[in-house]
Amino acid sequence: MSEQGRGGAAVEFGSERLEAFSDGVMAVIITILALELRPPAGPTLADLRAEWPSLLIYVLAFTFIALYWNNHHHLLRVTQRISGGVMWANMFLLFWLSLIPVVTAWLRDAYHEPLPAASFGVVGLAAAFAYFLLVRAIIRANGRDSLVATAISADFKGNLSIVLYAAGVGLAYVDVWIAYALYAGVAVMWLIPDRRFARSSAVDER
Amino acid sequence: MSEQGRGGAAVEFGSERLEAFSDGVMAVIITILALELRPPAGPTLADLRAEWPSLLIYVLAFTFIALYWNNHHHLLRVTQRISGGVMWANMFLLFWLSLIPVVTAWLRDAYHEPLPAASFGVVGLAAAFAYFLLVRAIIRANGRDSLVATAISADFKGNLSIVLYAAGVGLAYVDVWIAYALYAGVAVMWLIPDRRFARSSAVDER
Amino acid sequence: MSEQGRGGAAVEFGSERLEAFSDGVMAVIITILALELRPPAGPTLADLRAEWPSLLIYVLAFTFIALYWNNHHHLLRVTQRISGGVMWANMFLLFWLSLIPVVTAWLRDAYHEPLPAASFGVVGLAAAFAYFLLVRAIIRANGRDSLVATAISADFKGNLSIVLYAAGVGLAYVDVWIAYALYAGVAVMWLIPDRRFARSSAVDER
Amino acid sequence: MSEQGRGGAAVEFGSERLEAFSDGVMAVIITILALELRPPAGPTLADLRAEWPSLLIYVLAFTFIALYWNNHHHLLRVTQRISGGVMWANMFLLFWLSLIPVVTAWLRDAYHEPLPAASFGVVGLAAAFAYFLLVRAIIRANGRDSLVATAISADFKGNLSIVLYAAGVGLAYVDVWIAYALYAGVAVMWLIPDRRFARSSAVDER
Repeated sequence: MSEQGRGGAAVEFGSERLEAFSDGVMAVIITILALELRPPAGPTLADLRAEWPSLLIYVLAFTFIALYWNNHHHLLRVTQRISGGVMWANMFLLFWLSLIPVVTAWLRDAYHEPLPAASFGVVGLAAAFAYFLLVRAIIRANGRDSLVATAISADFKGNLSIVLYAAGVGLAYVDVWIAYALYAGVAVMWLIPDRRFARSSAVDER
Repeated sequence: MSEQGRGGAAVEFGSERLEAFSDGVMAVIITILALELRPPAGPTLADLRAEWPSLLIYVLAFTFIALYWNNHHHLLRVTQRISGGVMWANMFLLFWLSLIPVVTAWLRDAYHEPLPAASFGVVGLAAAFAYFLLVRAIIRANGRDSLVATAISADFKGNLSIVLYAAGVGLAYVDVWIAYALYAGVAVMWLIPDRRFARSSAVDER
Repeated sequence: MSEQGRGGAAVEFGSERLEAFSDGVMAVIITILALELRPPAGPTLADLRAEWPSLLIYVLAFTFIALYWNNHHHLLRVTQRISGGVMWANMFLLFWLSLIPVVTAWLRDAYHEPLPAASFGVVGLAAAFAYFLLVRAIIRANGRDSLVATAISADFKGNLSIVLYAAGVGLAYVDVWIAYALYAGVAVMWLIPDRRFARSSAVDER
Repeated sequence: MSEQGRGGAAVEFGSERLEAFSDGVMAVIITILALELRPPAGPTLADLRAEWPSLLIYVLAFTFIALYWNNHHHLLRVTQRISGGVMWANMFLLFWLSLIPVVTAWLRDAYHEPLPAASFGVVGLAAAFAYFLLVRAIIRANGRDSLVATAISADFKGNLSIVLYAAGVGLAYVDVWIAYALYAGVAVMWLIPDRRFARSSAVDER
């Protein structure tokens, strides 16, 4: 521990097990989502078509979790040290992600209603905020001049996500489709590869 | 194996796979908890409000598992060797943690009754006792002058947890809310970072 | 990162966590399949016999996932680097594999109907195509003269799988049993060990 | 790969990912078992008592999986190389273990009937046989003079398990309790730590 003087009581250590546990939780969240898929009620094309909205919502929820896994992977890869604060911020993120299946189940039954549509945004907003806290905690544990800190100097995407989700929550009461468009916008924005980590890991050299 | 003379037939080896398996089990326990969350029956705020106790109980159960994961992580991080006894003590802990979802489900349906409230305390008590056994088994496998033994010289929090859970079990028959307050007290106590491991890992230096 | 010039913004890094996450998702897909197995309705041999088709379908679906896990293991073992593209191709593969339980559940209820039988083929086809994309993305990330590229010079089995699944989808409308025979043929073909990786790993030498 | 001449096309490589996948599958099997636990129907002691057989069966099934995890851990720890054959033998073992939840569910509803009682023995027998195949495949991949081969020269416990399970299957038709006693006998026998690996890992020295 090279910089043990900084941070006082904050413990700092490798992130392997935190990554493994997060992987486990995210893998099972995807499972719960898949468990909630019901087979069509009968063998005809009409039966299959009746499950179409379910399948579409599954695709969106799967993508949502996949995006977080991807970003989490990139973030932790440039992280050299974690602390107790990082562990709790990570747990807080996993907590909000674990609510995705139940909000998704609610959406499936009532996607045209403002409250369920807004609830998805609330969970998305809370998850984005938890990710923001995680990034802050990691920067605090690694120092202002660390690889991870310079890589994320200004987390534009993270901040924009928070704004878009907040807008979605409010606008769900105007028209649910505006909310869904905003949520989809966040997903599309994150699907574009994150150049910051790409550049920083070129420096990383391992 | 530097100290193979000590401990006789007890096998001692690295803890990587034990940690991985425990992570897996704890991740799926959290999943089962999340699976038991039901979406609100309808799209109104009243429907959402009806699920409020469920959500609160989920938060508490999630925190309970998260605390054990955190402590387990800290404990195993300063552990150099494990033995067959450690593996069985760990299994015993996982067994009690795996009962959390079913007690939680019972609580949700009957949180105002003494027996379910006391049952949560019994499982909490047994898990705390299993953790106590795990700590003893780890100290036995690592020696009295090992890093882990000096770090936990007197496990004040562990012992207090056992006392508080036992009190909760008895007092659930007086008033269930006293029991819940005691259980919450244990959680809050553990949320405060554990300085022992912090200090020891400063010594650890890896 | 020895060849950072090639690939531009594409990040390249070790595959440990991608393998761990894929293992987690595949393990839970097998779980969902097992969860869908129902105990016989009564204690007699006739009750057990009534579950026979279920069990047979479980064996096939288990084998399907096991084959993908095996091939994924072999493929990633000779992979030195992954990129963002590899991560998304892998997610795409996991997405299709995660649909196996729901198609399997549909098959169990209506295995004699063309649409469910064809649907299994569609998911199998999509998974085979996703695997094809994954192999391409891995070769791109590792270079044309890398171990993995020379090992899979012509992915005969992968291409044949795609053809057989496509044929199965079409022929399910002639006779569902032709479709099942073709799907089983793909499985049998993959059960034969893949000599390419065997030979390449003899070169690998690690 | 030092001994590439032996074994021909058989690929040999490290067991890390095989262990990780097996851990994942066994963790989720335990989960399914826990998922099948139902909370008592009401808040009284009589309601809790009605779930007593369920809980007892859960304890036995948990112990069954825990024993396999433990033995698997010990076995793989002294294994230096795995092959394609080892991977398939391992999958075959995981397949039989994955049937434990459904047999357990059957037992819970009809534990006093010979066929369900015999079925548990059939699954136990098949799992023991799969473990036997796994041990053989590992010895073949590591050579007759390897650490693992000398450690298990004569697998007395494994062979006795097969005999006891086979006897249980037959005697379930005389009296189900004889069958349960034999199954419990196998579990108790395995709970006694395995000295062979203890001794060999003293040699292992890592």
